[in-house]
Amino acid sequence: MSLLIKNATILTMESDKPEFLNADLGVKGNRIIFIGNVPDNFKAVTEIDGTGKVVLPGLVNSHSHIAMSLMRHYADDLPFWTWLNDRIMPLEHKLTGPDIYAGSMLSIAEMIRSGITTFADMYFFVDEIAQAVSETGIRANLSRGLVFNSPDDISKIDESLEIFHKWNNSNDERIKIDLGPHAPYTCGPEYLKKISKIAGDIGAGIHIHISESRREVEEIYSLYKKSPVEYVRDCGIFENRTYAAHCVKVTDDDISILANNNVSVINNPGSNLKFGNGFAPVSKMLDAGINVSLGTDGPASNNNLNMFEEMNLTALVNKAADHSPTSVPAYTALQMATINGAKALGLDSETGSIKVGKKADLILVDMEKPHFYPKLDIVSSLIYSAQASDVCSVICDGRLLMRDKQLLTIDEMKVCNDADVLAKRLIGNS
Amino acid sequence: MSLLIKNATILTMESDKPEFLNADLGVKGNRIIFIGNVPDNFKAVTEIDGTGKVVLPGLVNSHSHIAMSLMRHYADDLPFWTWLNDRIMPLEHKLTGPDIYAGSMLSIAEMIRSGITTFADMYFFVDEIAQAVSETGIRANLSRGLVFNSPDDISKIDESLEIFHKWNNSNDERIKIDLGPHAPYTCGPEYLKKISKIAGDIGAGIHIHISESRREVEEIYSLYKKSPVEYVRDCGIFENRTYAAHCVKVTDDDISILANNNVSVINNPGSNLKFGNGFAPVSKMLDAGINVSLGTDGPASNNNLNMFEEMNLTALVNKAADHSPTSVPAYTALQMATINGAKALGLDSETGSIKVGKKADLILVDMEKPHFYPKLDIVSSLIYSAQASDVCSVICDGRLLMRDKQLLTIDEMKVCNDADVLAKRLIGNS
Repeated sequence: MSLLIKNATILTMESDKPEFLNADLGVKGNRIIFIGNVPDNFKAVTEIDGTGKVVLPGLVNSHSHIAMSLMRHYADDLPFWTWLNDRIMPLEHKLTGPDIYAGSMLSIAEMIRSGITTFADMYFFVDEIAQAVSETGIRANLSRGLVFNSPDDISKIDESLEIFHKWNNSNDERIKIDLGPHAPYTCGPEYLKKISKIAGDIGAGIHIHISESRREVEEIYSLYKKSPVEYVRDCGIFENRTYAAHCVKVTDDDISILANNNVSVINNPGSNLKFGNGFAPVSKMLDAGINVSLGTDGPASNNNLNMFEEMNLTALVNKAADHSPTSVPAYTALQMATINGAKALGLDSETGSIKVGKKADLILVDMEKPHFYPKLDIVSSLIYSAQASDVCSVICDGRLLMRDKQLLTIDEMKVCNDADVLAKRLIGNS
Repeated sequence: MSLLIKNATILTMESDKPEFLNADLGVKGNRIIFIGNVPDNFKAVTEIDGTGKVVLPGLVNSHSHIAMSLMRHYADDLPFWTWLNDRIMPLEHKLTGPDIYAGSMLSIAEMIRSGITTFADMYFFVDEIAQAVSETGIRANLSRGLVFNSPDDISKIDESLEIFHKWNNSNDERIKIDLGPHAPYTCGPEYLKKISKIAGDIGAGIHIHISESRREVEEIYSLYKKSPVEYVRDCGIFENRTYAAHCVKVTDDDISILANNNVSVINNPGSNLKFGNGFAPVSKMLDAGINVSLGTDGPASNNNLNMFEEMNLTALVNKAADHSPTSVPAYTALQMATINGAKALGLDSETGSIKVGKKADLILVDMEKPHFYPKLDIVSSLIYSAQASDVCSVICDGRLLMRDKQLLTIDEMKVCNDADVLAKRLIGNS
């Protein structure tokens, strides 16, 4: 497999300021092997014309529950606990492996279309999610959601270990398995401590939700006299590479703890807004040196898997929340969606930016659209004007997954229709 | 001119709740003449297959300065007053008629692509903007921005009257001319009173900015010991049909005044967020009975002309600002972008909803995309998942302006390149 992108304008995301290279880019196997002039001995099997396009690293969606696409548009404009307890959970209890596979395939189709080459997921039936990742060619850090409601739930940890041994580093390392303790309010201290110890033993990262809502903070405080961040820290979780979704209701002390423990925070602006949870203090967390990345959250809450929308939201909403039009400038939003996401998932030596030797996770954005004219500032235009549909071609791990808006590894209308049938059966049976 | 949309799923926007019709829709001249079965004597020159698509009224962008697209991506992530005084105004002083025409054509191309069939604009060189509206087939309420800095500025009112007599109701009533006193902080009381009287005499509406920022409120209070809303009311402006952009920093008393005077408020969430101005109290204004519609604001501030983004933003952001996931539900956002916009512009008897006898301002949204599956709730999916690029065909005043993503009245790449050349010349000369 060898691939050449000719005449590309490459935004490397390798620097603290936008760095553009006007060059050809070559891929051999799954890695970028040159940026510059084409070496004499390089023969490309596939050639892509980059004229009028910008090449970016593939976007990293660092928090989702992708199979929940099966339930999207089913329970909107409702309070969070009505949404969760009365609508989503009754359906989740009925979900089967084939449902999860169908929802995952649907979401991966949408993610590839919108330029996402890596995602992090927490859910169940992880075997089926991993199967969809394997088939479609996308990259993922997967974790089995761990919730402790009864002694039987200890078995979910054993299931996590099985998944880890089966899938971690499989598919040329495209699949990583992390551990997924769901949240402070669903995991008691002994359970968290056990998970923390196992993560350390096997070298897995931790994917967790922390401080999503005011109610969570109040519940944890009444139980433990601690903030959710303090509680999770005290259970030893942060001794492992941890990426914590949401962190909306965090104090200045919490921010110091997250920074001092090298916890990555996943900002999910669409989901936090839609549930009325408010605004994570993104600027404060960035100023404290925290690695803040971006995620869509699950499509039953968001409702799409559109990182261009999340980049736009984080750049806009934090300006209003901070009363400052200089908060979260465009390039910061782009860093959050690329290299910062890769760091959160422990993949920054391999993806998240464009550099010779790194894995070829690349997207091409077609700039020949009225909303990109006049061409005065590419980074601004990607954050404040772009749509996900401007992505025209997607390469992950050196393989073309979409070319000129055609998905190459997915039978798209079959995937859409399968999900439609299964979703309607699920809801009809509920 | 006759046109038939077959097998359409039509969301009429004629009711307080979503109303769908599965029917054929016929257009003769510029009006919808039937919804239902095709009459025997109806022969369509153009037939559009509506299968897999939803038909909506064309979107109404009820506040913009479209020619500012020439300056977009030129001054982002800056404080408002730096943006305005140091970057935008020096360029505005150099703008010529051909610049304004080029910027208008570029913006109209983008607006048609994103499903906008009507827009309201306030700027200068209105002749050139009207010319672009006339050529491209879109519908617009135009106003000459009126700012009183020196006695010479009285002439701008004469210019408004000339424009009114030249363009109002021209092009089969596609073009309306309103009066555009810019804002409380740029128009003294005598100037506003004069404009108010003239608007009454000629029957024009008023397009104005009110209470966009805290600084404006403080300035007006220090000058007049009144809020901007009270000040504008006391100058008689509200005796005319008035649509007031922004209204971010309004008190409960201001909201009562706006409601009691039947002032329409134009919510511009993208612009208000980007400048750090905050959140207009949309829910409170709707609860008070105010007609609240949506606008993009100018593309130098936003930076795009994407009403799908504005609908998404108003639905999301107000939930967070109100701490309530039930605020501004999806259908309300869609009303704001259609029928409420038409009401604000005095056009609701003619456009903004789909009904036999109304003008044929219609868009088709292609729902055969992964992000619209499973198909469980069309309204939710339009607000929480759609992209502007999902619009595939656009009809305004009975005329097809875009078919299957091809613009029919605009040479798109010429328009993009013309704007690019003029913008770079403008900036190079500054």
